[in-house]
Formats: sequence, C-alpha cells, structure tokens
Amino acid sequence: MIAVDWGTSSFRAYRVDTDGRIIDRRSAARGILSVAPGEFAAVLSEEIGAWLDHETSAVFMSGMIGSRQGWKEVPYLPCPVDLDTIARACAEVDWDRGRRVFIAPGLSCRDAQGVPDVMRGEETQIIGAIDELGPDAVVCLPGTHSKYVRVRDRRIVDFTTHMTGEAFGVLWRHSILGRLGDTEAVDDDTAFDAGVDRSADGQGLLHHLFGVRSRGLFGEMPASSLASYLSGILIGHEIRAAAPPAPVAVIGEAVLVRLYCRAFARCGIPSRPVAGEPAPRGLWAIARASGALT
Amino acid sequence: MIAVDWGTSSFRAYRVDTDGRIIDRRSAARGILSVAPGEFAAVLSEEIGAWLDHETSAVFMSGMIGSRQGWKEVPYLPCPVDLDTIARACAEVDWDRGRRVFIAPGLSCRDAQGVPDVMRGEETQIIGAIDELGPDAVVCLPGTHSKYVRVRDRRIVDFTTHMTGEAFGVLWRHSILGRLGDTEAVDDDTAFDAGVDRSADGQGLLHHLFGVRSRGLFGEMPASSLASYLSGILIGHEIRAAAPPAPVAVIGEAVLVRLYCRAFARCGIPSRPVAGEPAPRGLWAIARASGALT
Repeated sequence: MIAVDWGTSSFRAYRVDTDGRIIDRRSAARGILSVAPGEFAAVLSEEIGAWLDHETSAVFMSGMIGSRQGWKEVPYLPCPVDLDTIARACAEVDWDRGRRVFIAPGLSCRDAQGVPDVMRGEETQIIGAIDELGPDAVVCLPGTHSKYVRVRDRRIVDFTTHMTGEAFGVLWRHSILGRLGDTEAVDDDTAFDAGVDRSADGQGLLHHLFGVRSRGLFGEMPASSLASYLSGILIGHEIRAAAPPAPVAVIGEAVLVRLYCRAFARCGIPSRPVAGEPAPRGLWAIARASGALT
Repeated sequence: MIAVDWGTSSFRAYRVDTDGRIIDRRSAARGILSVAPGEFAAVLSEEIGAWLDHETSAVFMSGMIGSRQGWKEVPYLPCPVDLDTIARACAEVDWDRGRRVFIAPGLSCRDAQGVPDVMRGEETQIIGAIDELGPDAVVCLPGTHSKYVRVRDRRIVDFTTHMTGEAFGVLWRHSILGRLGDTEAVDDDTAFDAGVDRSADGQGLLHHLFGVRSRGLFGEMPASSLASYLSGILIGHEIRAAAPPAPVAVIGEAVLVRLYCRAFARCGIPSRPVAGEPAPRGLWAIARASGALT
C-alpha cells in the first residue's frame, strides 16, 4: 500500500510492503495550503504515480488533507477510539488511477471545562507507535500545536493541545521580542534551560515574555540566545500546565524531541523518545484493519 | 509649560498653566517609530511651535522619546524612586526655539528572580495621579505592555510588565486564531467574561489559545466573539499571574480601563478607574520639582 502523511505545509509519502516495512519514500513542500481546491488528485498523481504497480493495493492518507481546507472533510471521531474505530471511519475519495484512496479521520474530545479539542494526523502516529508504547501510555507530540495524549488499553482516551510552536513563531517574527535577537535557531541549551526554569516561578507567561526583551535590552543575554530562551519559556509553560503523568513518550522530529526530553528532565518528569516512523506504520495498520487491502 | 507624552506610535502635547491645569492639547500619529533619527526637534517645532509665547517656560517629555530609538537615551532609574529623584534625572536636549526641553527618565527594577523590568512613560502617569491614588497604592496600567506598579509613601517601589496587548495583536493578526474571526473588536462582554473565567482552570494559556480556535471551528462561539474571548483569556491570565493585592487603581484609555475593571471584578479583585489625564499632570509635577520652570 501507499501511506501519505499530508499536512498543512508538507507532503510525505511511503511505499509500505504487506508486512508494514517502508520500501520507498518521498516528500515535498506541497502541504494542503499550497494546493488549489480541486487539484489534490492531480498532485497525488504527480507525487506517487510512478510508484503504482500491480502490488499497490490502496492509498491511505492522514493529516490536514481530511480537513475543511483539504481534499475532503472527514468528520472528527470523538474519543475514546481504537484502531478499528478509526479504520471504519476512513473516507474514500475519487482518484482516476485505478486504486482506492482513503483519508483517515481526525479525533476530537472535550477538556475538563467542556471546550472541544481536535487533532488530525497525530492519531495515526500513535496507532503506528502503539506496539512500542504499550497498551497504556502518555504521549507528547511536540510541534506547532503540541499534543498530550492519554492511551489506555490501546485506545486513545483523550488529549490536550497547546499552541506552543505557533506562539513561538508569531512572537519571534511579529512582536518586539524578535527585534533584539539575531537568530531564530533554538541552539543554546543553557539559555533554553534558563527559559524552562523561568517558567516555574509563578509570575505568568505574559510577564516572562516581556523578560525576554528586558534581558536582551540590558545586555544580560546575548542576542543569539534569546530565541532559545523564549523557546524554553514556552515549552516550560506547556509542560507545567499539561502536567503529564510520567513517564512520557515523545514522538516527533528529532530536533524537537531532543528539546522536549531536555525540558521534561528539567521539570522532573521522566520521558523517552519513540523511535521509528510512526505515521506510515499507523496508516498501514489502519489500512489492514479497514479490510480495504486486497 | 508644555507637556509631551511621546510614545512609540503617538505624540500627545498639552499646554499646562502654572497651576497644572490643561489649557490646550493636540495629538498626532507621529510616534517615535515614524520619525527619522535627527528629526525629533523639527517634529516638535511643527507640532507645538505655534504654542510658544512669553508664558512658555519649558517643555517636558516622557515616554519612548527617551529610549535608544528616541531623541536621546535617558538611562533607566532603578526603583524605588520618588518625584524628586525623577525630576533630578531629567535630561536636557537641544532645541532651537529658545525654550529648554527635558526628557524624563524611565524606571527599571528587578523581579523576584532578578530579571530586569522597565517602563517609560507610566512613571509619569503615576506621579500625575498620586494625589488621587494616595501615598500607598497598587496601580494597573493596561496596554501593549501592561504594568502593575506598587506605590508606598508616594514612591514607586517596584513593578511587573506583562506583554498582554502585544500578544493579543500578534496572535490575532498572525496566527491561526484570527483566521476564523471576523472582527478584532473586543465588544462582546459575554465572550470576554468566558475568556476571563477560562483563564482560571489551570490548563495553561497555551492550551486556552488553541481552544479559541476549536470553539470557533465547532461553531460553539460566533466568529464575531472570538477576539473578545481571546482578549478575556489573555487579560485573565495576566491578572491571575500578577495577583495584585486589592484594591487596584486602573489608569489608561477608557475602553481598556472598562475591560480591566470588568476582568478584575470577575477575578474577585476590587478595582477602580483613575479619572483625569495623569500624563500631563505628572510632567507638570516633574517640571515643578526640577526647578527648571522660571
């Protein structure tokens, strides 16, 4: 089968054999925001058309491709859900290349105050990592919109989203904070740790943000360290608010996973990175459970 | 004398008589960011040149005009400070119109963690409001960078800054949050209150931000209410983190003062608006204390 992780800003495709092994892969900066409405089928043909052969049984996709701005809106499934529930809710779209194409649903839940929360794509990563996670786990998926997900008996029970990565981006690029800095790179561990520690003092994120500026203004932190300090403050606030029960399994890009494991340790919370590529593995599991692989 | 409140984005000038009464005023969108270096004297002439007469003794200015990006950088005075300390630290600049021109210093302090904090302009407003505030007060000055200031024995003891207004602006204009909304106006009290209440649940500001999107996405809050809800969340987080000892005196623009008093009440903290125009009153008091009025 072919697994496609199609998000807001990137397109990642994998050829997966019948045993779930990845035998080829490709990626492109063709996230859904770069594709005109009605052009999704054509883009898919361009990207994976050359892979189609007699062994290709079906294409399974997940991520923002199933959102209102994507190919077809696939309704959110309310938690708790398991693999079979997700597999049954996959929606088929039309493609003119003789293979069936399905989009996995996103998930929704409500937090303690009844406010809705949503994910698209992360559920597939968790399904793909479930053997390594074990039946019960707490998973952090850091990123633009970081997720904390509770897994019990191999089911996704509930989750919370934190707008951490996006807040970092807009504050750095559009507020006064980035003006004193000279790099957006988060590569100064000492400043990052100082930010994580700062998040614990109870004076509030909005005060801590201003301190990034004042420390820069007073020359007490070099311009090259301010982005790292800001990142540590934001991730520290996220972790302390999420207060996940330990140990936390962290799934994501290597750079972020390293930063988060560092921040978790700083907050006294044991964590471990999850290896591998859970998205294609999850799509393979969903495809198999759906019965659409022939 | 002439009092000038010259900030980042606006210029406000007042003719003040010897008893501190305002006898004329003008304002322009000529904040320091809109003035080229070296042009401050010329802009001042254009704006207040017509006011100069035999009664004009001196010009006193405060705000970002005294910053590194302003006419002349006037060093921050470390707290605690009183009126006389500020008056003595005013810096004179050259102006070719036969009147002395002074810039009041900003203030600095360090928070409980030793991180520096700064203000420019708010100290003048507090000096101007001191008779109404009384010798001991807690003052909130809401805005782009909201301030909480402690006053004891008519001295400014210390303060904290929260980047609330600027965070609202960049999140609304540049993040995913503004995309679902159809107005930046904060004019829905019910949604604002819901945001203030939301800030109390301990799940963290970064999670609450994402909830603005998900409530909009689920159609549980109309697009026209999302900015009010976001504003309530941010102001609620600011107030709960600042946790000012009651009662709080609120100084600022009428629209913001109303919102803040509403939010304080919602958080169970008594507050009251401070009437009048404290900036010119403060500059008049500083000018008098400086001995420069002849």
